[in-house]
Amino acid sequence: MDGLGDRPIKEFGGKTPLEYAKTPNLDKLAARGINGIMDTVAPGITPGSDTAHLSIFGLDPHKHYHGRGPIEACGAGVELRHGDIAFRANMGTVDESMTVIDRRAGRIGSTVELCKQLDGTKIDGVEIILKPSAWYRAALILRGKGISDKVTGNDSKKTGARIQEVTPLDGSKEAKKTATVLNKLTKLSYERLHDLEMNKERMENGELPANVLLFRSGGQYVPVPSLKERYGMKCACIGTGLYRGMGAFLKMDLIDVPGATGRYDSDFSAKTKKALEISDDYDFIFIHMKPTDSAAEDGNPELKVQMVERMDKAMGELLDFHGLVISTADHTTPCELKKHSYEPVPIIMAGPGILKDDVKKFGERSCSKGGIHRIRGLDLMPIIANHMGFSKLYGA
Amino acid sequence: MDGLGDRPIKEFGGKTPLEYAKTPNLDKLAARGINGIMDTVAPGITPGSDTAHLSIFGLDPHKHYHGRGPIEACGAGVELRHGDIAFRANMGTVDESMTVIDRRAGRIGSTVELCKQLDGTKIDGVEIILKPSAWYRAALILRGKGISDKVTGNDSKKTGARIQEVTPLDGSKEAKKTATVLNKLTKLSYERLHDLEMNKERMENGELPANVLLFRSGGQYVPVPSLKERYGMKCACIGTGLYRGMGAFLKMDLIDVPGATGRYDSDFSAKTKKALEISDDYDFIFIHMKPTDSAAEDGNPELKVQMVERMDKAMGELLDFHGLVISTADHTTPCELKKHSYEPVPIIMAGPGILKDDVKKFGERSCSKGGIHRIRGLDLMPIIANHMGFSKLYGA
Repeated sequence: MDGLGDRPIKEFGGKTPLEYAKTPNLDKLAARGINGIMDTVAPGITPGSDTAHLSIFGLDPHKHYHGRGPIEACGAGVELRHGDIAFRANMGTVDESMTVIDRRAGRIGSTVELCKQLDGTKIDGVEIILKPSAWYRAALILRGKGISDKVTGNDSKKTGARIQEVTPLDGSKEAKKTATVLNKLTKLSYERLHDLEMNKERMENGELPANVLLFRSGGQYVPVPSLKERYGMKCACIGTGLYRGMGAFLKMDLIDVPGATGRYDSDFSAKTKKALEISDDYDFIFIHMKPTDSAAEDGNPELKVQMVERMDKAMGELLDFHGLVISTADHTTPCELKKHSYEPVPIIMAGPGILKDDVKKFGERSCSKGGIHRIRGLDLMPIIANHMGFSKLYGA
Repeated sequence: MDGLGDRPIKEFGGKTPLEYAKTPNLDKLAARGINGIMDTVAPGITPGSDTAHLSIFGLDPHKHYHGRGPIEACGAGVELRHGDIAFRANMGTVDESMTVIDRRAGRIGSTVELCKQLDGTKIDGVEIILKPSAWYRAALILRGKGISDKVTGNDSKKTGARIQEVTPLDGSKEAKKTATVLNKLTKLSYERLHDLEMNKERMENGELPANVLLFRSGGQYVPVPSLKERYGMKCACIGTGLYRGMGAFLKMDLIDVPGATGRYDSDFSAKTKKALEISDDYDFIFIHMKPTDSAAEDGNPELKVQMVERMDKAMGELLDFHGLVISTADHTTPCELKKHSYEPVPIIMAGPGILKDDVKKFGERSCSKGGIHRIRGLDLMPIIANHMGFSKLYGA
């Protein structure tokens, strides 16, 4: 449950949204299980969604994190190779002076046709791979020799300003070459997209043309050991966006669920039902639910409570499951801050062989009194894998 | 108390063997002390007995663990030198095709005479040291230049199969040479032992001849800093088998106690009485009690309860002791698994100057609510040494 943790809300009598919400199913799970709190990266560190999930899946982000680009590119279905440089990309709108009018080209619904105009092009010997993702989004990958991720993007995230020139972030010749290639790509994207038939039609309809490729968060793809490789666990991922990308990055099977949108209207029960349905085929299923975080980033505690209560209902599907159920979050997102924060998140582990504690309610403070005490994200996967018997004795 | 931690037992109303057992003395100690839980290696790691004890004694096994062989060899009284390669060894029985009939030569009661036949031999310039240990066991040490522990043993732990050829585990010439020496040693052991007068007598009596040396778990001896060297503490060890080896490895004085067998019949009270008796001569006494682990590995929770209750009685001897008493375990061994597991173990620290908490009972869950919270094995020795005044100020 993304960004689940929060701070006291005055209107809730000092309770957090999770503490204020009615969560009969999660409370049942807490009462059956062992509970605690978890610093997904480390105490006092505010994790991004990417670094938090890497840690929870047992990969130290200080070693394995090379930017969000490669993780999202995995989610877009690109077969990345070691050394590829991947960026998050949008199709946007610029005027003829290359001033950004709209970063999302009027939230254009598909980039399939647009990506085709640039995908496969070579610039200075570097291959450009451009694959469509949801809505106005795409994944941009550079493949070739002598390139580097030590460059800025061209997307300053501002409208009304000229498009940002890509600049090297260190003195290497690789960074310089990559910046040159990317600046040529920006120019080329305008040349190839602006006069496209579909853009002419859009302008005739009063819509903004999708006439430029914007990109940011570049990172080198360095493969990581999957849960299969580390523990022998067959894994599935039920998530959208970055979280689908995280599943792909970790070589989980990606399971699509109709009605799962990643937005406020997402069908959480469809996700837990699907997980139950495929549970015989997998050792580990990662279910991600997004909008608790979105509600907090919108500064809306009432909406966060609604989302928690809908997620609780979905978790009811798992009450009769015969295996281990973990319920937790990737980070805290206080409604008062409208962004991620450092506080640890609550966690439940319930299932056979668990030494259950006295906790009866799922919440930041109730779980804090449980038998798990306070662990780190990196501790979680070894605990799960060992409890499930995918264990290696350390020593003799 | 080895392998003390456990999981809920249905027949005990969901209590663990330790929670179910009557432990008036340990409960008194808990009530007087500060309590907690401890991950002896790290959360989610299932420790071996060797890596767990190294951690508890303040040595990071990731740095200091080089296999069980050298630790057991220390217990057999061998003065190891840096670079020696030590193996756990058995005297076994093979037929003329070198097929293993019995890995323990009918559990022969002594290997003194047998070890003499090979001890001191040189093969390709490498010295063979072979010292008797309890029953059919021995310690095998290779000493010389250009040898390595990156080799298998010859003991596949299977009967009815031909003895395993020793093979190198890496491409080094040292591993290759060591494998050659060890394969010659296997052959030599049969030649020297098979026709021995004592084996002829054994066969005449219908007993299996002890006619081959089996060995496994090879590791290089790299000296570790003792508690004396790290803290200035004079230490004694009251334990058998591996645990006596651990004491020797850490340069503790080894104290033999009549009636201490390491088995179910072991006299635990004799151990605590002996500890009291010598307590004026030592700063730190390590008392190890084995059969809680053995009962769990036998899948017998009732027997584990019995062992806990007998250990509790022995701990009664220490209730009037004027110093610090620690009661804990090296790892969890759930009866349902019959093998080590990852869960943290309970710990009591009682004695002068201790900030006692509200815990009144020694148990996995009761101790979890105590003032120590959740620590790691590596934290324990610094806490003990500092509480006892063997402390160095860190900083100024």
